[in-house]
Amino acid sequence: MIPVRILGTASMLPGRAVTTEELSRQLGREPAAMMRRTGIRTRHWAEPEAKVAELGAQVLRQALEVAGLEARQLRRLLFVSSTGGEILIPASANRVSAALGLAGTCDGIDLNNACMGFLSAFDLASRCVATGLSPVGIVVVELGSRIVDASDARPYLVFGDAVAAAVLGPARPGEGLLSSVLANDGTLPPDTVLEHPVFTGRPEKVRFHVSRDEILQIAMNALSTATRTVLDQARVTLADIQWVLPHQPNGAMLRAIVEGLGIAPERIVPVVEETGSVGAASIPVSLDRLWRTRPVKPGDRILMVGVGAGVSHGALLYQVGE
Amino acid sequence: MIPVRILGTASMLPGRAVTTEELSRQLGREPAAMMRRTGIRTRHWAEPEAKVAELGAQVLRQALEVAGLEARQLRRLLFVSSTGGEILIPASANRVSAALGLAGTCDGIDLNNACMGFLSAFDLASRCVATGLSPVGIVVVELGSRIVDASDARPYLVFGDAVAAAVLGPARPGEGLLSSVLANDGTLPPDTVLEHPVFTGRPEKVRFHVSRDEILQIAMNALSTATRTVLDQARVTLADIQWVLPHQPNGAMLRAIVEGLGIAPERIVPVVEETGSVGAASIPVSLDRLWRTRPVKPGDRILMVGVGAGVSHGALLYQVGE
Repeated sequence: MIPVRILGTASMLPGRAVTTEELSRQLGREPAAMMRRTGIRTRHWAEPEAKVAELGAQVLRQALEVAGLEARQLRRLLFVSSTGGEILIPASANRVSAALGLAGTCDGIDLNNACMGFLSAFDLASRCVATGLSPVGIVVVELGSRIVDASDARPYLVFGDAVAAAVLGPARPGEGLLSSVLANDGTLPPDTVLEHPVFTGRPEKVRFHVSRDEILQIAMNALSTATRTVLDQARVTLADIQWVLPHQPNGAMLRAIVEGLGIAPERIVPVVEETGSVGAASIPVSLDRLWRTRPVKPGDRILMVGVGAGVSHGALLYQVGE
Repeated sequence: MIPVRILGTASMLPGRAVTTEELSRQLGREPAAMMRRTGIRTRHWAEPEAKVAELGAQVLRQALEVAGLEARQLRRLLFVSSTGGEILIPASANRVSAALGLAGTCDGIDLNNACMGFLSAFDLASRCVATGLSPVGIVVVELGSRIVDASDARPYLVFGDAVAAAVLGPARPGEGLLSSVLANDGTLPPDTVLEHPVFTGRPEKVRFHVSRDEILQIAMNALSTATRTVLDQARVTLADIQWVLPHQPNGAMLRAIVEGLGIAPERIVPVVEETGSVGAASIPVSLDRLWRTRPVKPGDRILMVGVGAGVSHGALLYQVGE
């Protein structure tokens, strides 16, 4: 076990709620059919003038408040985003910590692992805490609205914006990651791709390179493997797990995951119908809502399992302490 | 101490050596004056068709060979770059591991912390190893040539391309990080900035926002603080340090660091005259050359100290084992 405690979480959907109905009409599609296909009713799109660092600082401030900590007590800040923020140099983590008024009391690093970014950061942050560097703040900012446009309906209809944070610190007895199983397989055909405009020299938007069915197939294989492996490593079964937080890229995928893995619906925290596809923010938004709205109790086990472009996949099994 | 061992290192300067003389003539400047000002004689520029993932895989393969490991033994791959690779989604780490033929045996994460990226990754990788996830490969790919052009002479005359790798694994007795002190200060005025074209919607190149003297002042303050703090934490003095690997953004800065910190010239491994400013690759290139060309022996202490845009700064103190 990697001893670590979730000290606080927070999440936000920035900007206005944009309905699938509105976007469908804009594209000349039938709203009811689009809602059925995506399983998404709304997604939020941040205002064009919204700044990544300010959104990140805002949600981290909320998580710190839940944790009962001041920002200056943080020792490390991991900034997670599939795109990065408004700057590539310096790392966006600097702007987040500056927006919190921090100067030299903590370091900051930008991380990207597509939709698996939060689980990657949670694993790294846990290892920091376990080796004495604590507390660590994780901030996820995903502004999907900035990488889609109406010229490509598939991404346009699913991506949304969300920000989330978690603050990790020293464990109480019996608390922490029972197991962590993360992997990537870059030899699989790329499914979801955002080319880098620094290298291509032209504006880029996110593109799906394979069909919905192929993505579903790849994702289900990855999620099943990750779930089986993480449970085996911890020597528990799905029956020993109280809460399951799968990545939720769309409604169909969430249904397939819940049915495919055989998870009782009351053990999950559905968010995708309201949030749309929010990349690495999907799991921490549902983690935050789990904490705020469900009767989580000491000894409960939370399975966070995800898959993302790459193909990256994996699962963390967290046991709640006193 | 964080127990960890450097199992292998490698570095490469891709493409042809571009001389300061050639660039000075192109810009209508006096070559001798430009060489004096930058302290840079050559930098390498990768061929336009060179791919980030292939360069990264090539150098990591070399480091693995030094370590006596197969790529499939790796458990985690940290891909470090100030810009990212040719793709933002998925993470470039996927393409590096795919180029090594890996499929599901290791995870991969992209990291960015400007010129401090390697030290950030080394700290994180060490904490992974210390908590049982090992070996970890760090790959740094910095293609500065892709973010400069002749329209802006200051960056054009200093940035170069370099790739470097290090593989970390379990420590032998008395081996590892005696201390690690990393921090960022985003409240300082941004000195070196690359805006993100995904957000600006136009091509972007790296820009210096402050004068050379201001950058030097900021850097020297940061490096002095980091050095003093890391030595204090390890309860040693500079006299107890056999090797010092400072970040080398240009010749003037390297001279100022060596003089300002009072380091005997034979304890450093100068590279900037040949490499130019290679961002996060500067320290691991000199680490690789230290290992290959200097009489490093058990018990030696290596101080890696850096500063980067952000402002990020910090130092790691590594003690060599048997």
